[in-house]
Amino acid sequence: MSLSVAVAGASGYAGGELLRLLSSHPEFEVTTVTAFQNAGQPLVTLQPHLRSLAHLQLQPTDAATLAGHDVVFLALPHGKSGEVTAALSAGTVVIDCGADHRLESEADWAEFYGGEYFGAWTYGLPELLTQTGTQRDALRGATRIAVPGCNVTAITLALAPGIHSGVIFGDDLVSVLAVGPSGAGRVPKTELLGSELMGSANAYQVGGVHRHNPEIRQNLQMAGGVDVSISFTPVLVPMSRGILATSTAKLVPGTTESQVREAWETAYAAEPFVHVLPAGQFPRTADTLGANTALIGLAVDEAAGRVVVISAIDNLVKGTAGAAIQSANIALGFAETTGLSVDGVAP
Amino acid sequence: MSLSVAVAGASGYAGGELLRLLSSHPEFEVTTVTAFQNAGQPLVTLQPHLRSLAHLQLQPTDAATLAGHDVVFLALPHGKSGEVTAALSAGTVVIDCGADHRLESEADWAEFYGGEYFGAWTYGLPELLTQTGTQRDALRGATRIAVPGCNVTAITLALAPGIHSGVIFGDDLVSVLAVGPSGAGRVPKTELLGSELMGSANAYQVGGVHRHNPEIRQNLQMAGGVDVSISFTPVLVPMSRGILATSTAKLVPGTTESQVREAWETAYAAEPFVHVLPAGQFPRTADTLGANTALIGLAVDEAAGRVVVISAIDNLVKGTAGAAIQSANIALGFAETTGLSVDGVAP
Amino acid sequence: MSLSVAVAGASGYAGGELLRLLSSHPEFEVTTVTAFQNAGQPLVTLQPHLRSLAHLQLQPTDAATLAGHDVVFLALPHGKSGEVTAALSAGTVVIDCGADHRLESEADWAEFYGGEYFGAWTYGLPELLTQTGTQRDALRGATRIAVPGCNVTAITLALAPGIHSGVIFGDDLVSVLAVGPSGAGRVPKTELLGSELMGSANAYQVGGVHRHNPEIRQNLQMAGGVDVSISFTPVLVPMSRGILATSTAKLVPGTTESQVREAWETAYAAEPFVHVLPAGQFPRTADTLGANTALIGLAVDEAAGRVVVISAIDNLVKGTAGAAIQSANIALGFAETTGLSVDGVAP
Amino acid sequence: MSLSVAVAGASGYAGGELLRLLSSHPEFEVTTVTAFQNAGQPLVTLQPHLRSLAHLQLQPTDAATLAGHDVVFLALPHGKSGEVTAALSAGTVVIDCGADHRLESEADWAEFYGGEYFGAWTYGLPELLTQTGTQRDALRGATRIAVPGCNVTAITLALAPGIHSGVIFGDDLVSVLAVGPSGAGRVPKTELLGSELMGSANAYQVGGVHRHNPEIRQNLQMAGGVDVSISFTPVLVPMSRGILATSTAKLVPGTTESQVREAWETAYAAEPFVHVLPAGQFPRTADTLGANTALIGLAVDEAAGRVVVISAIDNLVKGTAGAAIQSANIALGFAETTGLSVDGVAP
Repeated sequence: MSLSVAVAGASGYAGGELLRLLSSHPEFEVTTVTAFQNAGQPLVTLQPHLRSLAHLQLQPTDAATLAGHDVVFLALPHGKSGEVTAALSAGTVVIDCGADHRLESEADWAEFYGGEYFGAWTYGLPELLTQTGTQRDALRGATRIAVPGCNVTAITLALAPGIHSGVIFGDDLVSVLAVGPSGAGRVPKTELLGSELMGSANAYQVGGVHRHNPEIRQNLQMAGGVDVSISFTPVLVPMSRGILATSTAKLVPGTTESQVREAWETAYAAEPFVHVLPAGQFPRTADTLGANTALIGLAVDEAAGRVVVISAIDNLVKGTAGAAIQSANIALGFAETTGLSVDGVAP
Repeated sequence: MSLSVAVAGASGYAGGELLRLLSSHPEFEVTTVTAFQNAGQPLVTLQPHLRSLAHLQLQPTDAATLAGHDVVFLALPHGKSGEVTAALSAGTVVIDCGADHRLESEADWAEFYGGEYFGAWTYGLPELLTQTGTQRDALRGATRIAVPGCNVTAITLALAPGIHSGVIFGDDLVSVLAVGPSGAGRVPKTELLGSELMGSANAYQVGGVHRHNPEIRQNLQMAGGVDVSISFTPVLVPMSRGILATSTAKLVPGTTESQVREAWETAYAAEPFVHVLPAGQFPRTADTLGANTALIGLAVDEAAGRVVVISAIDNLVKGTAGAAIQSANIALGFAETTGLSVDGVAP
Repeated sequence: MSLSVAVAGASGYAGGELLRLLSSHPEFEVTTVTAFQNAGQPLVTLQPHLRSLAHLQLQPTDAATLAGHDVVFLALPHGKSGEVTAALSAGTVVIDCGADHRLESEADWAEFYGGEYFGAWTYGLPELLTQTGTQRDALRGATRIAVPGCNVTAITLALAPGIHSGVIFGDDLVSVLAVGPSGAGRVPKTELLGSELMGSANAYQVGGVHRHNPEIRQNLQMAGGVDVSISFTPVLVPMSRGILATSTAKLVPGTTESQVREAWETAYAAEPFVHVLPAGQFPRTADTLGANTALIGLAVDEAAGRVVVISAIDNLVKGTAGAAIQSANIALGFAETTGLSVDGVAP
Repeated sequence: MSLSVAVAGASGYAGGELLRLLSSHPEFEVTTVTAFQNAGQPLVTLQPHLRSLAHLQLQPTDAATLAGHDVVFLALPHGKSGEVTAALSAGTVVIDCGADHRLESEADWAEFYGGEYFGAWTYGLPELLTQTGTQRDALRGATRIAVPGCNVTAITLALAPGIHSGVIFGDDLVSVLAVGPSGAGRVPKTELLGSELMGSANAYQVGGVHRHNPEIRQNLQMAGGVDVSISFTPVLVPMSRGILATSTAKLVPGTTESQVREAWETAYAAEPFVHVLPAGQFPRTADTLGANTALIGLAVDEAAGRVVVISAIDNLVKGTAGAAIQSANIALGFAETTGLSVDGVAP
């Protein structure tokens, strides 16, 4: 028998992607979808691609509507999750795709987000290397899960194996990400108009001010880093979805290229969703479209003394909704890959 | 009276852009256009956007056809310029948009290109800071000019002021570029098909193997760098044209943000084509489309100890054809801005 | 127990999409993939998005390799299917995504394709209205199936209900299609380069010369049309996938808007993959991305005396690979929707 | 000495394009730029591509600010032009890029726009064929000029020669346009977000309800049509700019292909901005990017009994700002092509 599921924030991009994936998940049945402004409308009016859920009507996003489900997925603007989840029963599995419960440091929260701090939940990046294994150990049986930020996932998966294994230094990392605008949400802002974005690339949140900075440091420290420092710049490029992260780190002197490659291949050998490409091959974001896959390519630049790691994900899947469902699968004891595809929709 | 001009390689993207700009240049008259494979066809069949040059017919690319002009622009695959220019008279001004004459080090040529080395020509980046001023001093009266690579221009303009002024270190530079595929030329390769590129981003020439590496080092050393080292990664993104370079360098300890800003603003204060944006503003490539403009945004990331410089150019204009014409203007004693626009075509 | 499946032409776009869909189909197991030029390589080198099929190696496309499977899907250039399938056993279910077996008229074949005529197979458009029901009746038990052309599917589904019901005339149809370039195949042609296509739209095969013309007429005549005449123009637009067809037909005088709407709603009321949108709503191709769905919007233009029908499909799914699998499901007695999604990947 | 120019609505897309073109026009000097919401800001903050106008500050859009200039260009939402222009002196040349003064029929205005009707001005499509010549005759000396709608220009230029010469019928025209979203203005609407538009195509204003309908009929009747009837559907496609119109009309029986071709070639033989391509060639919108050019390709579909005309323009140039300047040039007695390029920015 399926578990009953509610999705809050169902009219946005993250909510829509959760629903697309949940609609074909054999263990879940979406019974409730909610929205702030569009309550009362058919879901399919707002999300015309979700034909299989044409029977659902948007309801208001409040604690009463969300109560009584086995699982609740939240795809809300930051600051909203705390309000609606406080009233949910402790036994309900709650998966938050927003930022409210990601940071373990209240000081970081205050500096980068501000407002009331609701505390960290179990972090939903199963492949994250930890001192004792991977983060999936912590996710088993969890009932409150915080899904990572999409840029954070792309960078963490790219760099954690090198830091964990000690082949790179964590104190002067540089990551530049080509990202699609769907990560910025379904918000009518002039700078996100198609006319502004098509045929153009532009950086934003430059110079260490992006809110994903402390979360990246938190992850890489968990992977074994000391004194993690990163310069991280996202660049909007003209594709709806996708993140291509180019991350570089200083190579520990004396390390060979095969030691580098071994670090990543060992870390992800058993991972169903993280694939290290052969030497000389580098990923395209299109190869991950709609899939919960992260593809990783590696090169050592001897002249520069740096390792360069290219990682590709779909920001709405492995970067958000897919990670949420993967974490829920682990928390609830289902096979981790249930309802998730590894094959991208390309070209 | 106009100078007579020939453009070799007129059926490609760089050749087409040279012709678009030359067609409205008051001092030049294009009398000859050549191509390897399409000789005999009307230019406008291959370049249907060049309506003002509908009277021109493509001729073969050989020394005889190119002889007898006041100015010859070359937009040929690397290795081809040497062959056709050896026979041109010394008084003819020859501007090579290819790589053949960019590198001053024969060892670099051998490592990154190979084949016969034809020697360096006067380097066509007028704004390049040198020990005694700018590179435009060397361009006055020059008759053999090598136009920089497009990625090189984006990175050099971004980083040279900081190295020249001593506010950043040159020994651990990192640049990641979002680039449009027109820089790869009009070559029918599967990986450059629209179906492969649209909706996707992918890195290539990763790990220090890109041919633009030695040229970047050459420039930044000229700007005052010692021990210049750079990790440089180009990322193909879905726009025909444009380069958005995100370049970072370690900040010299003790340097203030206003000292950083002053270094760039001083360097480009008098430049007609390089504009430093106010604090908090960062460029979009669309704002440079079709223009000979380089736009630069700056930020200091104190936590990471790095300066982050975002530079935007049109790879076919400031990155190639515009730089060629700007250099020709200087060489021939015309006003440097003749025939070149600073206003991009946006949105 | 799964049926064994071979896919010929596995390195192209149609072949790749067949494999993406087949890899999650519970009744099929892909055991053989073939290619002309890339035989010997791992499938995933050519199709890096197909991570679940990383164990497969490309084999040569010939009759011997394709023999011995329960089902063979062909995604070959036209003219190639006849050669390789002649040797397959009569009991093998063969689904041809190419054009070789679509046309029932040898004269049409000679005029639009030329070369040897191999005869028509059972036509793989289950929703096509016929005099006695739908084309799915003919597909049950079929062992030789010809999948329609992608443009043909978009236009046929748009217009057949109106012709079948008699509310529109078939003698002056006009269809203009915005199409992505993946329909043109993975062929390195200059005019299909990303640089040429991005930021631009252009028509091709203008004036009744496109090979899909006779197939459209064949379908609409089957739906009940007499004297079907159509002006059909495809327009390449900058998206990898998708077809948005705008089709218009003269309204039979005296017909009301509700009669028009009823014709389409009745025709598709029971169809799992064809959805008629409410009045005032019109489809986007993105809503069908990766899905086997056709979305249809309708309007009556009283001033012009024409019905306007907007239909959206993914050219590689409902337009090719999805239709192939849907037809195979019917032929083999599986539930028609097995292994096919109705939900698009959007945004 | 230059004429002083004001541009109202300078923060939008049409206003920006007017300024880009005016900035290099030798007879005009832009002294005033106005905006409703952004008054007080530097122009270049809103239009960062207009580096040559970095000295201008946005002022409020009101009659007092606009008074005292030789020429005033209006790029305002419809309904706003009447208010601000009533107070301008009769001698000022006023060019309205909006819809307020396009329609000669008050009934059409009431049906498609509504609100106060301000009356028609001299129509700014110089190439429009009339009973006595072209519309440029009417523009000489005009002081109040209404610039056509962008879709209207694409369709009118495509069809007028055929109607004027009598080789096609005007009573069952069909036009479908692939259009970029910049024509919809710089308005933050969810349906115009990059995430919604990229990778997708969708029709809007389907079924004869688009406001450009009566204007198209008005033009084609002026060109000689009786009983003009048109079904016109715009389709948004993922490119910032450009219109590719596919227009078809019934061929008058007995007309030969060469008579058809002659009708268009004769009509545009002397036109500097409208070019008829040779048989078998069809335009791409990219070939008109940034240029005031309209490219036209022609085919006769004998089987369908229809002429198919493909026309390409840049909606912001020949479709708006370029037409405005071309009309102003004529009105003021300057050479018609002053300040306007025929060469597109491609690829």
